[in-house]
Amino acid sequence: MDIVRVGICQINSVVGDIRGNYQKIINYANTAKEKGCHIAVFPELALCGYPPEDLVFKKTFLKQNEEYIRKITEEVKDIILIVGFAHFENDIFNSAGIIYNGKIEGIYNKIFLPNYGVFDEERHFTKGKDPIIFKTKDFSFGVTICEDIWYPEGPAFALALAGAELIININASPYHIRKWSERENMLSTRAKDYITSIVYCNLVGGQDEVVFDGHSFLIDEDGKTIGRGKLFEEDLLIKDVDISAIREKRLKDPRWKKRDLMETPFNVKEYHIDTNFKNNSGVIITKEYHMPSVEEEVFLALKTALKDYFYKNNFKKGVIGLSGGIDSSLVAGIAVSALGKDNVVGVFMPSMFTSRESYEDARKLAENLGIRIIDVPITGIYNAYIKELKPLFEGLPFNSAEENIQARIRGNILMALSNKFGWLVITTGNKSEMSCGYATLYGDMAGGFALLKDVPKTLVYKIGRYYNELNKGDIIPERIFTKAPTAELRENQKDQDTLPPYDILDKIITAYVEEDKSKDEIIRMGIPEEIVLKTIRMIDINEYKRRQSPPGVKITERAFGKDRRMPITNRFQE
Amino acid sequence: MDIVRVGICQINSVVGDIRGNYQKIINYANTAKEKGCHIAVFPELALCGYPPEDLVFKKTFLKQNEEYIRKITEEVKDIILIVGFAHFENDIFNSAGIIYNGKIEGIYNKIFLPNYGVFDEERHFTKGKDPIIFKTKDFSFGVTICEDIWYPEGPAFALALAGAELIININASPYHIRKWSERENMLSTRAKDYITSIVYCNLVGGQDEVVFDGHSFLIDEDGKTIGRGKLFEEDLLIKDVDISAIREKRLKDPRWKKRDLMETPFNVKEYHIDTNFKNNSGVIITKEYHMPSVEEEVFLALKTALKDYFYKNNFKKGVIGLSGGIDSSLVAGIAVSALGKDNVVGVFMPSMFTSRESYEDARKLAENLGIRIIDVPITGIYNAYIKELKPLFEGLPFNSAEENIQARIRGNILMALSNKFGWLVITTGNKSEMSCGYATLYGDMAGGFALLKDVPKTLVYKIGRYYNELNKGDIIPERIFTKAPTAELRENQKDQDTLPPYDILDKIITAYVEEDKSKDEIIRMGIPEEIVLKTIRMIDINEYKRRQSPPGVKITERAFGKDRRMPITNRFQE
Repeated sequence: MDIVRVGICQINSVVGDIRGNYQKIINYANTAKEKGCHIAVFPELALCGYPPEDLVFKKTFLKQNEEYIRKITEEVKDIILIVGFAHFENDIFNSAGIIYNGKIEGIYNKIFLPNYGVFDEERHFTKGKDPIIFKTKDFSFGVTICEDIWYPEGPAFALALAGAELIININASPYHIRKWSERENMLSTRAKDYITSIVYCNLVGGQDEVVFDGHSFLIDEDGKTIGRGKLFEEDLLIKDVDISAIREKRLKDPRWKKRDLMETPFNVKEYHIDTNFKNNSGVIITKEYHMPSVEEEVFLALKTALKDYFYKNNFKKGVIGLSGGIDSSLVAGIAVSALGKDNVVGVFMPSMFTSRESYEDARKLAENLGIRIIDVPITGIYNAYIKELKPLFEGLPFNSAEENIQARIRGNILMALSNKFGWLVITTGNKSEMSCGYATLYGDMAGGFALLKDVPKTLVYKIGRYYNELNKGDIIPERIFTKAPTAELRENQKDQDTLPPYDILDKIITAYVEEDKSKDEIIRMGIPEEIVLKTIRMIDINEYKRRQSPPGVKITERAFGKDRRMPITNRFQE
Repeated sequence: MDIVRVGICQINSVVGDIRGNYQKIINYANTAKEKGCHIAVFPELALCGYPPEDLVFKKTFLKQNEEYIRKITEEVKDIILIVGFAHFENDIFNSAGIIYNGKIEGIYNKIFLPNYGVFDEERHFTKGKDPIIFKTKDFSFGVTICEDIWYPEGPAFALALAGAELIININASPYHIRKWSERENMLSTRAKDYITSIVYCNLVGGQDEVVFDGHSFLIDEDGKTIGRGKLFEEDLLIKDVDISAIREKRLKDPRWKKRDLMETPFNVKEYHIDTNFKNNSGVIITKEYHMPSVEEEVFLALKTALKDYFYKNNFKKGVIGLSGGIDSSLVAGIAVSALGKDNVVGVFMPSMFTSRESYEDARKLAENLGIRIIDVPITGIYNAYIKELKPLFEGLPFNSAEENIQARIRGNILMALSNKFGWLVITTGNKSEMSCGYATLYGDMAGGFALLKDVPKTLVYKIGRYYNELNKGDIIPERIFTKAPTAELRENQKDQDTLPPYDILDKIITAYVEEDKSKDEIIRMGIPEEIVLKTIRMIDINEYKRRQSPPGVKITERAFGKDRRMPITNRFQE
């Protein structure tokens, strides 16, 4: 046999739902088998979900992992399964079980543990020692886990030198913009360097602050991508690997002849699997794949993250404060895409500062989306506060105190609806506001999920445009794009009274937050010093607000939250 | 010279305030020199504060560290200084500079980087390679950093084998109950094993979620503590180390003769410092030291954490919602101790459910503490909400929605006062409530610092008692200790309608949250299964609330926040 058929099972595991994930793994494995696959591959920690965080410190959690990985071996026969799970053997490992015919043939423990960005794997796992190569009478393969393959002379290299013709890399690689392209480029180089075919199997779905994009793929020994899984959806990608082509290429390759000159610190262990496979190259339907635009992938990331936050936490309906502005309009639109229009409720909460335009735009949006809109005016409530606070505030000018009272009344109303009807509040603040603290803690920041938390305002507009194109119409009314953004917390207020223009602001945020540029470097980008200093100061001093914000999903190279861990108490100034 | 005089400078650094910390280091170093010290020792990362978190990824932050460590060398002469700083040399290290007469004689890079509990050092630093021993013509010493010395065969062992007579261990070791005693016990063993004197210099002061207790000490070669620094206060502890006694003991010790049989993986590098020291054994005033009770140390921990959160974030006045219950009463008491009575404002916010007793108790407490108390009734505001929500809530029973509206009105009022007057809101929820989610998000949870977040309710009562003893009177009125705890959010409500009795609840929390015990193990402790299941379920599903809670200070073995990282989206069940 010289054609190995691989089923890449890009599944959406739920953290902690070991029984549910197990069931899903069995179902996919059986389908892959029915379609003639010799190997079915599942993502990193597919059995327990990723990241399990401190759950791995629970003995019962580890026990369930072992129990269900063993159950899997009993249920599916005549196909090699590669399944990620949390493995306990004196230490806790991030592992892949290599399973065949009722037996765990080997367990590979991840060697390179990422501990940067959103990752805490050095906290949770012990690093493995050596790669394992599996030899069947037809072909040889090795398994690596995510970070492992980002090191050119890591375990995948050792496996290739030891003769692996197929490298199976299982992943839980969180999405950020265009990351799939980075992965494909890097792995194309690896495949050519190692003269192997590489299976890249990634998790899919949202988990708190991250979303996995799937986009699994198979690369041949020429570095060419010969199949891709869906973006942000579960998928079973089936592809054939031509082992004889790999062998032939190695025979001819001048570098391969010199491989005994190369060294690796790893000691590859060899296992034999007694398979009895037949060629099975019936026609595979090749799926269409189109390269998404940035707007499309971000839209899908947000939609998936939101949908999974609801579904995995057992919420059905969401509620959104509609202001008539772009942020809440886009959030409502994405929520309708993710949850369905019957599961989205908009709440319009006008005050004495709310304009006619806001009222019209919010109403028009709700109408276009086909969602229910509730009006709860706040002026009466606001006056009740002011009456009680009068003895204390008398003679003092209207300032952020009065502004925030309004925002917090709205937060209270949305939460009351949440508490009464079991709806989850989706908050609408974007990354530009989160950066500068241009938001009211417990006010517009109140809610369960902050959908746009990592989306800069300039990108919010672009995704809004994309949303209208996607839905073939002005779902988000045109005026919402063109009018000046305002919080409407005082007379004639505009965002740009307080913040620099959003195109400049977003440039500073990218440079300072995502790229760790210094103030001098940002000034050298051509942005006026005064604006740079004012903005980075706002970013620095508002860490306390972000610390109490709801989770939102990472879509950029560096999000707030686990991805950027700054002290609140912090007197550092450049 | 055979007596080395050591000045242990237990300082309170501010994270990021490199200039301010530098000034403090210079001042302490000069005082130590005046008092005849040969060596002045400063805590781990004393120059930049601990933990600097992702600030270390800023080039400008690292540059300031290098700049000011060099300034220190120029400013203080004729005394060896050991100063912790963030050191950049191709990689980022957690380092100690060993400085003498205008020169950095050596830089030791921490080898064992903690990455568990509240620590993220593998994220921020690269591990060092080898220990360094410093030889002067009079004595030999080595420096280790915090975690390094917790490994019996770590760098301190290598240093002892290489001949170090004095081991200087610099620390940023966060407080939890009785941790100082663990440290002393462990280091006593180390000193005896290595036949060295050990200097333990710890940071002091609060930083976001942790507080450092100071409690530095010196242990002699017999394992005896011969001096202790203050608890939770800056201190300069000066002690003499008798080098000849160490040498003599080594000569006689049978284990020391066999030291060539012992191996260490470290390669100790040797540096020489050309000192010209004289014996300087003038009388040192030995400070009194009393062993604190648990209540006393927790009280000091809370007071210090609160004081530093205010001071380091430039707040002067605090505001507290007073309910007449034990939590808010204790918080007000501690705030008065930390900030002074003129800087604490109590706000009483009665509703239709507020009892006469609550009114009297809150008023009496404020009077006893000598603080201002403001009344802001919330019934009118509540009715304004209910009026607007009536069309939506009509016909539905009163439930947590209406309860939470009240709590959130109070949150809004406190935040309005905060916004208007620049006061920081101190929240009053305890660990028992935080565990079970028995608190209103954006309501009683709203504020800048959650003082009792890690203090279980049963301990709150004990510290309340201690507070009254300390202040020699019933500052917290007796009835507050004896009446049944209630949130007063509905008619005749009591905490125990919803929660198990607090003594049982706190046992479950300790077992489940702090000790990772399974439900079966907790049931085997003799707690009824039904209560155990209900409680751990409450703990599990309320992670989303804790994620949005203000920071509070760790005082137990495991606090919420950085110390316990659980997914919100989590379907794990034992």
